Amino acid sequence: MKIVLLGSGNVATHLAKALKAKGEDVAQVYSPNLVNAKLLADSIAAEAISDLSAVKTDADLYVISVKDDAIESIATGLKTVSGLVVHTSGTTDIKVLSAQVKHAGVFYPLQTFSKTKQVSFDQIPLCIEATDAVQLDVLKQLASKLSQRVYKLGGDKRKILHLAAVFACNFPNHLYALANQVLTQNGLDFEIIRPLIAETADKVMTDLPENVQTGPAVRADETTINKHLSMLNNMPELQNIYQILSNSIKLMPK
Amino acid sequence: MKIVLLGSGNVATHLAKALKAKGEDVAQVYSPNLVNAKLLADSIAAEAISDLSAVKTDADLYVISVKDDAIESIATGLKTVSGLVVHTSGTTDIKVLSAQVKHAGVFYPLQTFSKTKQVSFDQIPLCIEATDAVQLDVLKQLASKLSQRVYKLGGDKRKILHLAAVFACNFPNHLYALANQVLTQNGLDFEIIRPLIAETADKVMTDLPENVQTGPAVRADETTINKHLSMLNNMPELQNIYQILSNSIKLMPK
Repeated sequence: MKIVLLGSGNVATHLAKALKAKGEDVAQVYSPNLVNAKLLADSIAAEAISDLSAVKTDADLYVISVKDDAIESIATGLKTVSGLVVHTSGTTDIKVLSAQVKHAGVFYPLQTFSKTKQVSFDQIPLCIEATDAVQLDVLKQLASKLSQRVYKLGGDKRKILHLAAVFACNFPNHLYALANQVLTQNGLDFEIIRPLIAETADKVMTDLPENVQTGPAVRADETTINKHLSMLNNMPELQNIYQILSNSIKLMPK
Repeated sequence: MKIVLLGSGNVATHLAKALKAKGEDVAQVYSPNLVNAKLLADSIAAEAISDLSAVKTDADLYVISVKDDAIESIATGLKTVSGLVVHTSGTTDIKVLSAQVKHAGVFYPLQTFSKTKQVSFDQIPLCIEATDAVQLDVLKQLASKLSQRVYKLGGDKRKILHLAAVFACNFPNHLYALANQVLTQNGLDFEIIRPLIAETADKVMTDLPENVQTGPAVRADETTINKHLSMLNNMPELQNIYQILSNSIKLMPK
């Protein structure tokens, strides 16, 4: 497949490398900033462009992987192409594309991407959607090359998934950061708590989280909860979060 | 070492098996409930007892691994022993033991234990403390047999660690459970989000969480945050947690 990639951020970078590794022809990388476009394009032997009018019109697939609020204006610049145009956003409606281009779709990888850390694409859930069945099949074939986990998902469910991802990824990561605040304020290193974080995630790979909860709140151990709350007297924001999440744990159906 | 184990819960069970696997002589398992004592004792070829007066007085080490509020009464039953008496609690002061017995210590494994899931002890941080240097050295040697991660830690730091563990383990697990509520209410399976959870934890194995945060809050993407909040209109508790944690992410120093 001949592919044009529009974007040069974390998702675009990881996706470009995965496509290239599977032998796909990523012909161009577009970014309004030519330096950024070149940085990614050079690493996959593609052409770097910073002007939408330079986009090749004969590609099979155009992947828009930019900030949500920039998707629409890029789609406007692709009005004349006849290939399939997809975005990689969890929250953006497919209509933002289909109002502009002939064939529209979504190719949403449900993962958290960092600049430097490698991630094995074959376990990443790829959520796909398209305005017609033929194009959906094209997307499915491409996605199946990259990952064992391909889900055909309408926009409503994709948006739910994106919301659930905030609870399952962004918020837990923030709680790791708060744990680190508690540790460093007391001269302890984050390293000591890493095995616990790894095991906590590992437990829910084969079970459901509500079945494996531990700690004072699930035991309704008010003595320990009160000790912890008083230890957080000088960190009122953490104290508030501790209280709210402990109450929420106590409310879970047993 | 000749060891008597007092308790038969998750920590006691995992610890007993790890000690046995390293060739230690776990002679007795005590539980007020003889059935529970036998269940664990039989699996490691130890004697099951349900009466504290039956505890052997010639053991080198007595490990009290019971609920925090039951530690003191068990220690009272061990007044006559001359071996080292330790508890495995993150929050309980060593004085609860040293007020009762000759040699007191703490042997706190910083991990979340489930009934069924195996856990490799050699990566578990073991936090040790003792009332005298000789006994601390005894504990250190034993702990080093079980794990590569042994920390000599005073009670104050151990209690900090226990508090940080709530943020790093119990709360993230609860957020996985809330993610699952969002998913199941919308006909989606928890399985789809497991790779994201695994990667989120994996990222902080080599970096600090505050360096790798992703998602709408860290980008101050109010459009997405407001979309998510309105999707949670019928789940006010989750809406409140979403708001508070998003605000907390925004407050993190960059």
